[in-house]
Parts: sequence; structure tokens; C-alpha cells
Amino acid sequence: MDEEFTDENYTVRDDMPDGTEGEHEHRHEHHQQVLARLARIKGHVRAIKRMVENDTSCPDVLTQIAAVRSALNSVGRVILEDHLQSCMVDAVEKDDYKRALKDLKNSLDKFIG
Amino acid sequence: MDEEFTDENYTVRDDMPDGTEGEHEHRHEHHQQVLARLARIKGHVRAIKRMVENDTSCPDVLTQIAAVRSALNSVGRVILEDHLQSCMVDAVEKDDYKRALKDLKNSLDKFIG
Repeated sequence: MDEEFTDENYTVRDDMPDGTEGEHEHRHEHHQQVLARLARIKGHVRAIKRMVENDTSCPDVLTQIAAVRSALNSVGRVILEDHLQSCMVDAVEKDDYKRALKDLKNSLDKFIG
Repeated sequence: MDEEFTDENYTVRDDMPDGTEGEHEHRHEHHQQVLARLARIKGHVRAIKRMVENDTSCPDVLTQIAAVRSALNSVGRVILEDHLQSCMVDAVEKDDYKRALKDLKNSLDKFIG
């Protein structure tokens, strides 16, 4: 997945799932770790914005963007690991694995690219 | 670049360049657009953290992480375009292109991966 985001089409979508329906019935092993990592990633993006505001050299900014991207890949892998260990096992036990596999495939298509 | 970030080694480094030395002598064409995109990316990461807090399904979370990654790639390309159009031209005119090319190469190694 490498679609072009423009100022016009890149928005945090209003219809982004917010999970208020409580789709999970269980907690993941790495739940707190994932939240901590996402908090740090948010802080890292804020720091990069400050670098741009302060006219830091472009190569330094690009290097930090690459670091955030790696951190996103890393937290994604942790989420995926938790998902396979808990959600997928749940889905199989509830005989709901076909839908679960379809959702996972669609998501992996985007995550792996 | 796909190094593993762990809780131990992933921090927003204290020695991250903050550009307070004013390394740029010029403004980029897309300066404001880059700042706006980074602000939206930060908001997007915050929204993903909220999804995890609210136990949104893992495939939905992974999909949004992939979207942020694409947005980072996109803003990186804009920064790179500005850099080539202004910083690199400046460096050549000031006969400082060898250092500029070396910095750019090191950064691209990380950004392109």
C-alpha cells in the first residue's frame, strides 16, 4: 500500500472505528506495551514537527521519519502477534474463523503492502 | 531500515537535532504543507492509541497503522522534493555539494530502507 496522500484526501476519517462497541472480549498480553509505544510514537512525530518548524536539515528530518516508520512496523508486529495468540484462537473456538481470517487477510494486505 | 525497537531502546532521543542552530537559510516551498501533514499524522497516531484503548479489532488497528505509514512516506517525499529543489541547489552554488550529497545519501539509506 503506497497510495498518495494529499492535503485534500488525508484526514483522520470521521468513520474510523473507535472500538466503543467493545469488539474484544479479552485483553492482549502486550496491551499496555502497545499503548506506551503509540504514546512514544506520537511524541516522536511531535518532535519531528518541531524540527521542521526550527528548520532542521532535511536529511535529519528524513532520518527521524524513517525511525517513526520502523517504530510503527514494530508496534504493528506486536499487535499482530497478540491477535494471532488470542483473537484468532477465540475465533476458531467460536467457529467464527472464516470471518476472522478474511478480516485478517484484508488488513495484512495493507500492513505488509 | 527495519531495526527492532523494544521498550528499552525506543525513545525519542535527547540528542535528536532540534534545528535551533538554524541550519536552513531558506524556506521550502511546501514548509506549511509539511507542518500541516505532520500535525494530522500526530492526530492519527493519537486516534489509533484511542482505538487500542477502546479494544477496537486488531485488523482495524493494523489498517490504520498502515495508513499512517503511507502518510509518513508521503510527507517524506515532499520534504525530499523541497530538499532537492532548494538545499541541494544552494549547496552546489556554495560549492558545498560533497558534504550535502553525503548527508543525503546517509538519510536516503534509512528512508528508502
